[in-house]
Amino acid sequence: MHKPTMKDIAKKAGVSTATVSRVINNYPFVKERTKKKVQEVIDQYKYYPDLIARSMIKKRTFTIGLIVGGLDNPFFAESAECIVKEASKFDSHVMLYVNEEKSSKMAEYIAFLIAKRVDGIIIGSMYKDDHRLIEQLDHSQIPYVLYNRKNKRKQVDYIVQDNYKGAFEAVSHLIRLGHKRISMVYGSSESETVESRLEGYHKALAVNGLKVYPHLMHEVGFKNIETKVREAIRVMYSDKIKPTAIFTSADFIAMEAMECLSELGYRVPEEVAIVGFDNIRLSGHSFIGLTTVNQAVEEMSKLAVERLMQKIDEQENNLPPSELNSWQIKLSPQLIIRKTCGATVQEK
Amino acid sequence: MHKPTMKDIAKKAGVSTATVSRVINNYPFVKERTKKKVQEVIDQYKYYPDLIARSMIKKRTFTIGLIVGGLDNPFFAESAECIVKEASKFDSHVMLYVNEEKSSKMAEYIAFLIAKRVDGIIIGSMYKDDHRLIEQLDHSQIPYVLYNRKNKRKQVDYIVQDNYKGAFEAVSHLIRLGHKRISMVYGSSESETVESRLEGYHKALAVNGLKVYPHLMHEVGFKNIETKVREAIRVMYSDKIKPTAIFTSADFIAMEAMECLSELGYRVPEEVAIVGFDNIRLSGHSFIGLTTVNQAVEEMSKLAVERLMQKIDEQENNLPPSELNSWQIKLSPQLIIRKTCGATVQEK
Repeated sequence: MHKPTMKDIAKKAGVSTATVSRVINNYPFVKERTKKKVQEVIDQYKYYPDLIARSMIKKRTFTIGLIVGGLDNPFFAESAECIVKEASKFDSHVMLYVNEEKSSKMAEYIAFLIAKRVDGIIIGSMYKDDHRLIEQLDHSQIPYVLYNRKNKRKQVDYIVQDNYKGAFEAVSHLIRLGHKRISMVYGSSESETVESRLEGYHKALAVNGLKVYPHLMHEVGFKNIETKVREAIRVMYSDKIKPTAIFTSADFIAMEAMECLSELGYRVPEEVAIVGFDNIRLSGHSFIGLTTVNQAVEEMSKLAVERLMQKIDEQENNLPPSELNSWQIKLSPQLIIRKTCGATVQEK
Repeated sequence: MHKPTMKDIAKKAGVSTATVSRVINNYPFVKERTKKKVQEVIDQYKYYPDLIARSMIKKRTFTIGLIVGGLDNPFFAESAECIVKEASKFDSHVMLYVNEEKSSKMAEYIAFLIAKRVDGIIIGSMYKDDHRLIEQLDHSQIPYVLYNRKNKRKQVDYIVQDNYKGAFEAVSHLIRLGHKRISMVYGSSESETVESRLEGYHKALAVNGLKVYPHLMHEVGFKNIETKVREAIRVMYSDKIKPTAIFTSADFIAMEAMECLSELGYRVPEEVAIVGFDNIRLSGHSFIGLTTVNQAVEEMSKLAVERLMQKIDEQENNLPPSELNSWQIKLSPQLIIRKTCGATVQEK
């Protein structure tokens, strides 16, 4: 038998094509009996219409690729959720890849997505110096957008938080509270996000005439975070000159630090103030109450998808690119003050 | 030019094919200069080997589909992470779909995955009565495995937690602590998971001769959980007969309940004991310390992927199915006692 059409299904089920369409699209006001009958015929003839059919007409796959560092980082889990939901508004599905923060995996996935002819790609875990991957994407002519972390090349479309300013404000807040020995525990400096947050941290100390203590700076990378954060905390708190506050480059690092401090018998915020970055959902939980910089994950995800869809449309319709080289968005950071940074401290 | 082969790349770069392979697979001991040269040629000729090439030889796409309810449910985010990692051990990529707990979306995604000729499908958010979807999958002859929630049909391969027993043990523990008015706040009873947990709850009350208070039973569904949990808590705690303990069908519901109780001025566990289900990562955080039933997410995810790969292999090699209708795994639950259920209570 030839591939069944909507007409075939309608004929077999003894209804109009409009009714078949209504059943497929789950419209209300279709009688249960009619629905059941149509569904049976659809199942029998394995009629899978919709996206597949449309992708044949439109020369699009209605699929976009999404690459994130890891779903164990709640920022990525939450943004992936937002991107999937937003993409579905454009009738697009998402192929999700977790590159485990490895450039080699990213390269493999990009190659795969190109070969799969996805309509576009969104990347949340690009490293700042990964020009080779950017070239690979440019060669492919598949539209793409970076979010969360940008690349250093000018021509790339991206949306990020103003990480420098966010970190500057977070650390300035700690300084205003009286802290002078502020540790920073951060992920990999291969990521532009972390690099900018480090710059903001240094700038805030500098303008306030505070010293940087090298032994209070701890890079924990992206793997075995738990172990490495614990090591960092243990090392710092066995030293004579202990930090009174810890700024972290991510909320999940902050939570790990809080956990470890509590095991060591230090009270947050009475003895140690903590500030994170991201504002993941659980940071707002009253049992955690983490002071943090809001990444505006929903807004960032939404805008990234919208921009990608615009680029896909432009390409499909051979329109001139709307504004060459210009979609580079930095969102304004917002410091959300909760209980983990406590009140003003006395000289310690 | 014809599609470049590894030989072409080797020739252009003036190295052996073994060296090209080493560069592609990121082996150590390749000189930086050689690496750079090979990479340049690869980029120039857009040579994307590996999975694509292999999928043409093996008639497989090396892609599996994964459907979960939503990444805002940490259980799904964590299991998706585990499944992606486990699949990559089998050189398989994962197309992730979030069906937002809607059968209609699930149907659409399944149809799409079938049309995309994925090697197999793993589903975490199947409803217990969704036989139509199971039929759709069976028709397609694509191997599939359910995890987390099973369907009521006998022939389906699945791996789930023993939800009945887990709930029974959790509620029995609360009863042993002296609680007599135990509320249950749960997701949608369309899910077999929730249904079995409800049964375990009822059984534990029954064998201990305790009364079920209908006003302490609250179904919050899967949408707008925050609002609905809050409503449920507010309603219960404005009543004369208040619960002294709350058992929830998921950790993220438990956390929402804790949040709301704390806003209303109730202390956990002193005034209200809380027990969850799932054991998501943050439940173990010392600031939360949620008593919960371990879902063993890593084990469950790992076994689901292994089983799927076995089925894919069997189909590819035309082997007889290993054990017809028999891969139906129930993991043994483990109650993890932390601080939210506190100590023995006095008669209230």
